[in-house]
Amino acid sequence: MTAPSPSQIFRTTRRVEFSDTDAAGIAHFTAFFRSMEQAEHDLLRSVGLSVFMQVDGQEITWPRVSSKCDFRSMAKFEEVLEIAVTISRLGEKSITWSFHFTIGPRDIASGEITAVCCRVNPDGTLSSTPIPHLFLTKLQPLTTNH
Amino acid sequence: MTAPSPSQIFRTTRRVEFSDTDAAGIAHFTAFFRSMEQAEHDLLRSVGLSVFMQVDGQEITWPRVSSKCDFRSMAKFEEVLEIAVTISRLGEKSITWSFHFTIGPRDIASGEITAVCCRVNPDGTLSSTPIPHLFLTKLQPLTTNH
Amino acid sequence: MTAPSPSQIFRTTRRVEFSDTDAAGIAHFTAFFRSMEQAEHDLLRSVGLSVFMQVDGQEITWPRVSSKCDFRSMAKFEEVLEIAVTISRLGEKSITWSFHFTIGPRDIASGEITAVCCRVNPDGTLSSTPIPHLFLTKLQPLTTNH
Amino acid sequence: MTAPSPSQIFRTTRRVEFSDTDAAGIAHFTAFFRSMEQAEHDLLRSVGLSVFMQVDGQEITWPRVSSKCDFRSMAKFEEVLEIAVTISRLGEKSITWSFHFTIGPRDIASGEITAVCCRVNPDGTLSSTPIPHLFLTKLQPLTTNH
Repeated sequence: MTAPSPSQIFRTTRRVEFSDTDAAGIAHFTAFFRSMEQAEHDLLRSVGLSVFMQVDGQEITWPRVSSKCDFRSMAKFEEVLEIAVTISRLGEKSITWSFHFTIGPRDIASGEITAVCCRVNPDGTLSSTPIPHLFLTKLQPLTTNH
Repeated sequence: MTAPSPSQIFRTTRRVEFSDTDAAGIAHFTAFFRSMEQAEHDLLRSVGLSVFMQVDGQEITWPRVSSKCDFRSMAKFEEVLEIAVTISRLGEKSITWSFHFTIGPRDIASGEITAVCCRVNPDGTLSSTPIPHLFLTKLQPLTTNH
Repeated sequence: MTAPSPSQIFRTTRRVEFSDTDAAGIAHFTAFFRSMEQAEHDLLRSVGLSVFMQVDGQEITWPRVSSKCDFRSMAKFEEVLEIAVTISRLGEKSITWSFHFTIGPRDIASGEITAVCCRVNPDGTLSSTPIPHLFLTKLQPLTTNH
Repeated sequence: MTAPSPSQIFRTTRRVEFSDTDAAGIAHFTAFFRSMEQAEHDLLRSVGLSVFMQVDGQEITWPRVSSKCDFRSMAKFEEVLEIAVTISRLGEKSITWSFHFTIGPRDIASGEITAVCCRVNPDGTLSSTPIPHLFLTKLQPLTTNH
């Protein structure tokens, strides 16, 4: 894997809300998975895309095929997570997003989401489909593996 | 308002999960709104209905028009909330559910959800519609205001 | 009730995240209760306060005694809720926050949270206590009922 | 890795609630992480333990160091996830829980949580500590790697 260049890193933030905390007094581990998804959507919005949009008359959506997160330090209520997002793999039909969470100098967590491109069929079911050209064009410059 | 007869009270339970707690060490107040909705759905299932179902070839759903909850005591991780559900109003187009939460002898909270019956239009928008006969028949015996 | 003057309205925003939506394709009603709390905390932070802080060597927290919300229109994924917050009642021991949600010209919802000031005892239990002077001083200018 | 014997598999269930669904009409991926944790806690309760308890006068808790989930099929509102839990690793200071989700014959997802045993210090911070004998005794019979 090649280290991402600065232009390949998208940065966003997310504050730990009270509803994200648990009785141990820290951000619950599921809050990081929600935050990864929100960071993914922030990046898509920043290039004019959405995780749920019409492309060439076709509704496109991205169900997750896997996700993981390693937790190295705890985050508390009202702290602001800084999230660095990169695309570590842009395949023909799927995409892998990588996330690194820090709070100032503290290394908090890192994780990954792999999502597969699907079209929504008229009956509401989903079928895997090649990633539309519109997505490829906008996401390739952000991808570290090409 | 008439006091409900025993046959008009539907009873269900819900354990306070760790993800329901917050840094104050108690069930977060939003967990009660989630629990009210789950208790509503438990009741509907118990009479063969669903909050999201086809009736007479029409997709029927129930957006909320209001909800409230009064909190009198705190609930902790792993405690089991006992929830008593009654229908305090069954109108032509809307329904009001009432909920009372206890844990053994402790009075925890009470709340309400008012939902309006809607059909899902082909374009995905919702239109208010009279409550289908199927729902009225099954829910009237549980209603305290008739 | 007196209408709030412009200086008594605190404004914040919150985007509808994908995890806030439900199978009906709209922001789930519990997302509005989470958003009300986040708006309350945004306001407190804006005047240097926190819902969970030490005041005069005492840990102060604010359990909710009631909350309600009326829903007038639906909010969809990625829409940005504009939230106007006012303090409609600042009592000796409790506070009532009012919230109005709009999206551009659309009136979405309005709600309320009443919270009671408590100190955290050494054994972790909570006791109702008069609102500290620090809070009163900073919140009175924002209160519409004085 | 050895295949678990039937006595090493703990089974629990969890219904997909409406608040677990998203605008794609399926259980949101974060619902699986919440469900894994709830299944872990169900197992602990079944042997008289809790994820948050006093052992030998010491408050013990289990922050997560990593979690992951692979998703193979979708789960819809009101479907009941059957969850098989095994302990794939019981170390000196940490434990790895494995989870397999099915709905009838459908293979839905599988995941893992690794948690580290910590004592809560008087100042609220956490320190890694050997897993108490009480936990080892009760969890070793359920562990597939010994």
